[in-house]
Amino acid sequence: MIEVETPALVLDLDAFEANVETAFGLARAAGVSLRPHGKSHKSPDIARRLIAAGAVGTCVATLAEAEAMVAADVEGVLLTAPVATKGQIARIALMLAEGADLMVVADHPDTVAPLSAAADRAGMRLRVLVECDMGQARTGVLTAEAAVTLAHAIAAAPGLTFAGIHAYWGHLQQVADIAERRARVEAQADVLRGIIADLRAEGLEPAIVTGGGTGTFSIDRDLGIFTELQIGSFIFLDSLYGPLALEADGTNPYRHSLFVRAAVVSANALGNDLPQVIVNAGLKAFATDSGLPRLASGPEGLNPSDTTYRYKGDEHGALMLPPGAPVRLGQILDFVPSHCDPTVNLYPRYHLMRGGEWTGHWPILGRTGAA
Amino acid sequence: MIEVETPALVLDLDAFEANVETAFGLARAAGVSLRPHGKSHKSPDIARRLIAAGAVGTCVATLAEAEAMVAADVEGVLLTAPVATKGQIARIALMLAEGADLMVVADHPDTVAPLSAAADRAGMRLRVLVECDMGQARTGVLTAEAAVTLAHAIAAAPGLTFAGIHAYWGHLQQVADIAERRARVEAQADVLRGIIADLRAEGLEPAIVTGGGTGTFSIDRDLGIFTELQIGSFIFLDSLYGPLALEADGTNPYRHSLFVRAAVVSANALGNDLPQVIVNAGLKAFATDSGLPRLASGPEGLNPSDTTYRYKGDEHGALMLPPGAPVRLGQILDFVPSHCDPTVNLYPRYHLMRGGEWTGHWPILGRTGAA
Repeated sequence: MIEVETPALVLDLDAFEANVETAFGLARAAGVSLRPHGKSHKSPDIARRLIAAGAVGTCVATLAEAEAMVAADVEGVLLTAPVATKGQIARIALMLAEGADLMVVADHPDTVAPLSAAADRAGMRLRVLVECDMGQARTGVLTAEAAVTLAHAIAAAPGLTFAGIHAYWGHLQQVADIAERRARVEAQADVLRGIIADLRAEGLEPAIVTGGGTGTFSIDRDLGIFTELQIGSFIFLDSLYGPLALEADGTNPYRHSLFVRAAVVSANALGNDLPQVIVNAGLKAFATDSGLPRLASGPEGLNPSDTTYRYKGDEHGALMLPPGAPVRLGQILDFVPSHCDPTVNLYPRYHLMRGGEWTGHWPILGRTGAA
Repeated sequence: MIEVETPALVLDLDAFEANVETAFGLARAAGVSLRPHGKSHKSPDIARRLIAAGAVGTCVATLAEAEAMVAADVEGVLLTAPVATKGQIARIALMLAEGADLMVVADHPDTVAPLSAAADRAGMRLRVLVECDMGQARTGVLTAEAAVTLAHAIAAAPGLTFAGIHAYWGHLQQVADIAERRARVEAQADVLRGIIADLRAEGLEPAIVTGGGTGTFSIDRDLGIFTELQIGSFIFLDSLYGPLALEADGTNPYRHSLFVRAAVVSANALGNDLPQVIVNAGLKAFATDSGLPRLASGPEGLNPSDTTYRYKGDEHGALMLPPGAPVRLGQILDFVPSHCDPTVNLYPRYHLMRGGEWTGHWPILGRTGAA
C-alpha cells in the first residue's frame, strides 16, 4: 500500500456505506426522514451520498458549513444553530441571493426583523424553524410561550415562513444506560409535545419537527413526534459511541469507519519493562475533549485491547505495549478517534479506502475559521 | 470596528511585539541564541519577524511545518522531532534538493542510513542533531552511550554532519512552583552535561546544544549548556503560562497577544438567576487538552474574572455571568485560549490587530494533515 503522509484521516468506505445502509433502513422502517448532520463530516461529497441514500438534505451547525454545502449545490440545507450578528445575517442573505436551498433556526424575537430584511434583500423567502431548548441549557427558547411568540413573529414577518421546530437533546445522546436514556428522552418528549400542541392551538402547524442524534436514534424514531432526524456520528462510529448500546435490544449496529493513521517515529523504549512506541499523532491529531483514542488494529500478533494510547504533547502519542509486541520503528498504525466531529475538523481531507486500497480523497470544508 | 467572521483567531501585534522584545532582550543579556519554536505559530510571517528580531532560525515540529517554512524561504529551519518512514525521509530529501536551509534530529541508528541516502540523493549535506530524552519518555536516545553511538554513526555517514544535541524537557515547562521547576531542570541538566562530556571525550563536539521552553527559559538560559533555546509560547502567552511565575523574581514578563473572538448567538438565559449567554466558540474553536478558555475583556461594567466559560458542544460555549451583566445578543467577546499551540492549529489565519484596528492577516500553514 502506498504510504500517506501521517497523521492522516482515513475513511473506510465499506464500513461507511454499511453504516448508511443500516441507518436508512431503520429510518425507513420507522417512517421517519433523515437529514443527517453535516457538522460530523463537513463534506459535500458525503452529504450528496447521504441524499442519494434517501436523506432529505443535510443539517449544518455553522455558516461556514452552510456555505460549503451551498457552494457544492447540496439541497435541503438546514442551519441548526441560531445566528445573531449583522455579519452572520449578511452571509445568510448572500446564500439566499445565490439561490441556496436553505433553512435556518431562530431562538430570539430580536433576530426576526434582520432575517426578514435579509430575505427581502435577497428577494427570496426564508424558512425559519423555532429552536426549543430541550434541557441542554444551550440555544433555544426556554418555554412554550416563548416558542409561540417567536413562531407568530416569524409567520408575520415579510419574507419569512414559519417552517417548524428544532428540538435537540444533545445532552442525552451519550447517557450510558439505554433504559435511562429512553426514560429521559421520553420525559423531554412530553415537553416537546406540549410545545407542539400550543403552536397548533394558535394555528401554527410545525411542518418540520427535527432533532435527535445517533445516541437516541432508536428511541427518537418511534416517538411519533419527529418528521425528520439529524443523526450524524453513525456514519463514523467513534470510540464514544462505539461501546454504547444504540438499539433497544442492546446492540450497536454500526462499524468504525473513521481512523487516524499515524507512524511510529521513535521506538527506543520498545525493549523496556514497560514497552512503548511513539507515534506522530498527539494533541493536534485527535480531539481531546472526550477520552483517549484507541488502537484500531495492530500488526499480526498484537491485540489492540492490550495497548493503551497516551498523549505525549502536541505532535506525539505513546502507545503502551505488551512485552514483545511486534511493533517496529516506522510502523503504520490506525487509531479510532474518541470524538469524531472535532477530530474531522482538524483535517483538510479524508483519505478514502476500499478493500484495503486507496481510492481517492474528499475535502473537508467549512472548518473552524475557514469562511 | 469591522466585524470578522467568528470564531476567529486574533493576534494583538502590540502585545506580540512587546513579548518578542522582552524575550530577545533576556536572551541577549544571557548570551544565548534563540531559534523559537514554530510549532506554536505555524507562520512564516512570524518566523521572519523573529529572525529580524535576532533569531538564528526557526524550529518546527513536523514535516508540514518545515515544508511551509522552507517554501517561504525561512532560514535556519530545525525539525525537532525524529522521522522514520520512507515517505517522511523522501520529504526531507525533496526539501534538501530544493536548497532548504534545514537541520533534523535523529534518535535511532536505523534512521541514519536512509537520511544519508536522502542527502546523497539531493546532492546536499544534511546536519543532524542527536535527540536525547530528558526524562519526558517521548523521543530521544535514553542513555549517553546511545547518544555517542548515534553521533558516531551520523558523523561517519556520507552526506551527514553531526551537528549537536537536541534536549528538550517538555514535561518540566509547567511545573507550577518555580523553585521546584529549577531544581528539576538542574538535575536534568547534570544528565545533559554528562552526555556532552561523553561526546567530547569521543571527539564529537556538539556545535549546537538546543532545548528549553517558555516555562524554563529563565533557568535554561543561565545553565551554560545551551547554545540556543527554542522557546515558543512566549509570543502568545496562553492561559496555561499566564498564571506561571516565569522569571526568577516570580514575575511573568509577557502579555496575552492571542485571542479567540466569538459572538453571542443566544441569550435566552441572560435574565435567569444564574445568567449565561451562548457564544459560537466551542470544542472546535479551542484546544481542550489543558483547561478552559477565559474571557479576556468584557464590555464596560463586566469584570472578566466574574465570568466562567463552559463548553457546550462542538460549536458553542456558555459564558456564566454575574446577574445584570451588560452582555447582549450579538455581542462580540474575546477569549484567551488555554493552550495556544493546538488552538492555533485549528485556524487558517491570524486576524491582525494593532491599536484596536485590523491591519491584515497572516496565514497559518503546515496544520495537521495539511501537507
